Amino acid sequence: MAEEKIMGIDLGGTTVKFAILTTEGEIQQKWSIQTNILDEGSHIVPDIIASINHHLNLYDMQPKDFIGIGMGTPGSVDRKKGTVVGAYNLKWKTTQPVKEQIEKETGISFTLDNDANVAALGERWKGAGDNEPDVVFMTLGTGVGGGIIMEGDLLHGAAGCAGEVGHITVDPNGFECTCGKKGCIETIASATGIVQVARKLSEEYAGTSELKQSLDNGEDITSKDVFKLAEEKEDQLALMVVDYVCYYLGLACGNLGNSLNPSSLILGGGVSAAGEFLRSKVANYFEQFTFPQVTESTKIKLAQLGNDAGIIGAASLALKLKD
Amino acid sequence: MAEEKIMGIDLGGTTVKFAILTTEGEIQQKWSIQTNILDEGSHIVPDIIASINHHLNLYDMQPKDFIGIGMGTPGSVDRKKGTVVGAYNLKWKTTQPVKEQIEKETGISFTLDNDANVAALGERWKGAGDNEPDVVFMTLGTGVGGGIIMEGDLLHGAAGCAGEVGHITVDPNGFECTCGKKGCIETIASATGIVQVARKLSEEYAGTSELKQSLDNGEDITSKDVFKLAEEKEDQLALMVVDYVCYYLGLACGNLGNSLNPSSLILGGGVSAAGEFLRSKVANYFEQFTFPQVTESTKIKLAQLGNDAGIIGAASLALKLKD
Repeated sequence: MAEEKIMGIDLGGTTVKFAILTTEGEIQQKWSIQTNILDEGSHIVPDIIASINHHLNLYDMQPKDFIGIGMGTPGSVDRKKGTVVGAYNLKWKTTQPVKEQIEKETGISFTLDNDANVAALGERWKGAGDNEPDVVFMTLGTGVGGGIIMEGDLLHGAAGCAGEVGHITVDPNGFECTCGKKGCIETIASATGIVQVARKLSEEYAGTSELKQSLDNGEDITSKDVFKLAEEKEDQLALMVVDYVCYYLGLACGNLGNSLNPSSLILGGGVSAAGEFLRSKVANYFEQFTFPQVTESTKIKLAQLGNDAGIIGAASLALKLKD
Repeated sequence: MAEEKIMGIDLGGTTVKFAILTTEGEIQQKWSIQTNILDEGSHIVPDIIASINHHLNLYDMQPKDFIGIGMGTPGSVDRKKGTVVGAYNLKWKTTQPVKEQIEKETGISFTLDNDANVAALGERWKGAGDNEPDVVFMTLGTGVGGGIIMEGDLLHGAAGCAGEVGHITVDPNGFECTCGKKGCIETIASATGIVQVARKLSEEYAGTSELKQSLDNGEDITSKDVFKLAEEKEDQLALMVVDYVCYYLGLACGNLGNSLNPSSLILGGGVSAAGEFLRSKVANYFEQFTFPQVTESTKIKLAQLGNDAGIIGAASLALKLKD
């Protein structure tokens, strides 16, 4: 009898990542292709199918070697039907019957969920989450997203919005958000939010600061620059910006902790590259904003899997196809 | 073969409520006894056992007629062991082997959870929750508590604190809370919190107001008085207090909605007796604090079961004993 494998696919706007894993979550093969978004994204699914079949051939594997394929995708997912709609970075405007096409052309069972949820599953299973039943994942990138796993299950909510932690209101009178309301944590702790905070605090800042000088000179500043100036040069304005960001991240994490009490609250995404410098400051404010039993039992952690979180989490979806 | 029944017990500091229900959640028998907290609460479990056996006798029922007994209790619950500790209103300071004693003396399987979780299960099953998989329940009483059901499962969290929504921080510089931190929703929206808000706003209020007059005269004011003055007499200070309370309740509910997207967010407890006057105001602020998909799919509702939520939810725990 063939050893049972799972496949994970992480579909993004620039690349599609693939991996073949054991049921224990060990990556055995990994590859990727470019995402071809021409012609309203109509090449994406055929390209995925061709790449799967090509690699099965290459590794001399059969469909029956697999429990299934799991995929993380942008856009709105209908998990039952296995369709995706409104993934604008893929140019998918109409409903895409992804599951039907992939199952038909590969002969392997297929399941999918949204990309942030799938990354959360990955970090929970093989990353910072220690495979505990209750894990919250927050990804700090261009925007702020996330996924929530409680009692071992990924949460979806009434309209699939559970885990959309980027729109937690932390400052009711704060910056306007693309969602239409004010003071979402995304307006403060995303890569663009951090620059926005820097500009705001710079206006009011009177001392000397390399960050302020750069902003005043009209230079392009990134969130990475802000963290670098704060950590390496102790730039006073940059430190104020980092403190501001961590205060509100601590408040958002604190309220997720107070209501859900996960064992881990994991920070991932590009901004989390700031590492322990970021984590420790968020954890300090988290302590201030949580009641004692939560402070003690919920830990703020950094993501460990980087780009692999998506393929690993996606593959873990396939494990459920076995039941 | 005997029809299968379930029993629900709601253990409180003054009374213990009992009910026998069908597996469809229809209450067939209901009774209660006083809670005897003398001698460090050592009479409580024997009294419960005696009352169960007495009523089985009375209704001519056998242990085999029951799938099981579920109970909601104050204090910290160890669900696996079936024990309770630290239920101070029952004078239970040491660990109580409730499950072991009740199963031994009644011959019926037993399971338990904390009282707020059990009430949440009740409202979800037979009350305002319409038996949907994702329901958040918030009880506004002496304190603020709650329970969260997602994907059909009650959430517990790493240390059993999931659903303790009363300590969500809504005003980081607000009132001090008994938990040690500041600005918990409990300090604003509990019965005592509302009076606290009234005193604070009264100090700054210069106009005429029956509420201000009562407070200045040192009269005992309750949250019920505040809502009554606001709704029936349009007392300006009382209306300001109600608006203040509903703003922060809308913020707390908004953030639960933004991260969990339940189909229902149910307000229960004594304060919710203010009814639609309260609900509509909270719902208005909820709309302001949620992003569009959540605003549309998550509804703010009033609890429907009153005191029966506990016995119904407790009984529903017993249904899981069947699996």
